[in-house]
Amino acid sequence: MLATIDIKVTRAANSKLKEIDFDNLPFGKNFTDHMLEADYINGEWKNVEIKPYQPLLIAPSNAALHYGQAIFEGIKAYKDDQDNAYIFRPYDNFKRFNISAERMQMPVVPEEIFIEGMRKLIEMDRDWIPAKPNYSLYIRPFMYASDEVIGVKASDTYKFIIILSPTGPYYAAPMRIWVEEKYIRAAEGGVGYAKAAGNYGGAMYVTAQAKKNGFDQVLWMDAKEHKYVQECGVMNVFFIVGDKVLTPDLTAGTILAGVTRDTVITVLKEMGFTIEERPVSIDEIIAAHKAGTLKEVFGTGTAATVATIKEMQYKDYNMQFDISNLATTTEVKKRVDDIRYGHAADVHGWMYRV
Amino acid sequence: MLATIDIKVTRAANSKLKEIDFDNLPFGKNFTDHMLEADYINGEWKNVEIKPYQPLLIAPSNAALHYGQAIFEGIKAYKDDQDNAYIFRPYDNFKRFNISAERMQMPVVPEEIFIEGMRKLIEMDRDWIPAKPNYSLYIRPFMYASDEVIGVKASDTYKFIIILSPTGPYYAAPMRIWVEEKYIRAAEGGVGYAKAAGNYGGAMYVTAQAKKNGFDQVLWMDAKEHKYVQECGVMNVFFIVGDKVLTPDLTAGTILAGVTRDTVITVLKEMGFTIEERPVSIDEIIAAHKAGTLKEVFGTGTAATVATIKEMQYKDYNMQFDISNLATTTEVKKRVDDIRYGHAADVHGWMYRV
Repeated sequence: MLATIDIKVTRAANSKLKEIDFDNLPFGKNFTDHMLEADYINGEWKNVEIKPYQPLLIAPSNAALHYGQAIFEGIKAYKDDQDNAYIFRPYDNFKRFNISAERMQMPVVPEEIFIEGMRKLIEMDRDWIPAKPNYSLYIRPFMYASDEVIGVKASDTYKFIIILSPTGPYYAAPMRIWVEEKYIRAAEGGVGYAKAAGNYGGAMYVTAQAKKNGFDQVLWMDAKEHKYVQECGVMNVFFIVGDKVLTPDLTAGTILAGVTRDTVITVLKEMGFTIEERPVSIDEIIAAHKAGTLKEVFGTGTAATVATIKEMQYKDYNMQFDISNLATTTEVKKRVDDIRYGHAADVHGWMYRV
Repeated sequence: MLATIDIKVTRAANSKLKEIDFDNLPFGKNFTDHMLEADYINGEWKNVEIKPYQPLLIAPSNAALHYGQAIFEGIKAYKDDQDNAYIFRPYDNFKRFNISAERMQMPVVPEEIFIEGMRKLIEMDRDWIPAKPNYSLYIRPFMYASDEVIGVKASDTYKFIIILSPTGPYYAAPMRIWVEEKYIRAAEGGVGYAKAAGNYGGAMYVTAQAKKNGFDQVLWMDAKEHKYVQECGVMNVFFIVGDKVLTPDLTAGTILAGVTRDTVITVLKEMGFTIEERPVSIDEIIAAHKAGTLKEVFGTGTAATVATIKEMQYKDYNMQFDISNLATTTEVKKRVDDIRYGHAADVHGWMYRV
């Protein structure tokens, strides 16, 4: 259905596949044999190329290194029991990528490059897709400014790249979360809804402080009142309170519109839950915890899928959750995984055949 | 006075100096023959090297391109009439660089590398320092994360680099400023006071919109009330109202602590002005404009030094300023320039001999 795209292909002379220990795959450390590259020059995308994975030659005056016009996406590919390869919801990440691009004053990437380029790249490296539970091929499309001038202005040229990394379970252990009340990740009118590089770098100081104190991640609050929970930087967050599920809404543009967030909301509705997407205050969460109605808390993200949260700390108040009985978290994850690994019908059209 | 530092020096085989048109120097486009590089590995800085200006070899999984741990500084070097070379206030930029580093969870760069490395690099490329009014050698120290892993975490390794660019006048023409009321640059608890790459990329969409409407720059407002003026992204801002000078204070941590801002405040005080560093509301500025007491408006920054503002637009309200009589703006710029070019005594110890 897509327009034909002229992709120059240069195959790697030797595959690195046999050098990789597929029983031990730390997240984002190993990359496949090939990468996709495209250049935005004079207002158009050109030089679309799949070539051996290799370093980039970047000028010291590169605009992205100085002024942060850089965005990315995270997507996963899976294999079913018949060795068919599928990408999970690539069109949703494609749309979000271009929303990020617009906010960062970067050009949109056309479907023929983002989707068809990704499909073709994965087709070439399909032997790299692990075929076991909780494993997948992590797909990282990204774009950065490539002007070589250090005047502060939007770059005229850009590079779009896709790299692939076989990956095992992420955040396998239940997590301890620090609720941050002073520092913020994003504010209304800012770039919080964009998957922009700077959102992650800006969060690292507080995350490092939290880690020093034994926490795994930070749950951010809103910038105005420091009262409403936002997201975890690498995950959206869900609270099961009584028979309802609460998760922060996207209206303010301060949190990422997670594709896994949307997947989980859809699946929870199918399981009969009422989902309330609305501002969720930390006071409400604490009150529910005190009343004993806060049953499960989990994060969602492409890397983590569904990550169990076992503890949250807000100021002096500590909340522990019973992780011996995570009926809903477990069931949601199972249902999403069943679709991804081809064990359940793909009624939503989420699986894109490679 | 500084500890001896072991800098490996590799000289360029040929100088590019004669290829440069020194009468036509667009900002940040031409770079000198050499650059300084240093690596942060295993908790220490090493491999300090001055070598020919050349591209960087960066992994596609480079942490800075994905997660935005990247900071920079802007400094200038000048020549006096006796051909002596000086760097303007490098220690102030050095301090701010390390404040930015801390906020972005990056290692501090030691004085021996930042200051002495810069001095030595400029000494080697001293023939590149233009010796005429409004011209200078722009110095760009920067640091970026260099881990080659795409898990979201602070990088373990970093690269520190200094590049040099001979430069002419920046923002020579009086500027038209758009006062932005919806989008924001920074918020309390964020990274606004850090010279982090993402602060600039996040501002480009709104700046591009403003440029489409004929404006040169955006004046940002605070994130909470959209009421108090902040900075212009590339400049701090000053308002001369009656016999006072108003400029936003640094308390909230949402604007950059400009070195030129501090220089100009010092010089204005010497000129007898009362400086009020405090929250400055747009309503107060508009009221002063209506009352006829808003006399001059200007921006300050390393690239621009002192930039005349001739017009500001807030919503439907347009303010024009009489640029035929800019007594104070002109005098401030002259006094700062006189120090920089060695025509006035350096009573504050701002000039650092190369």
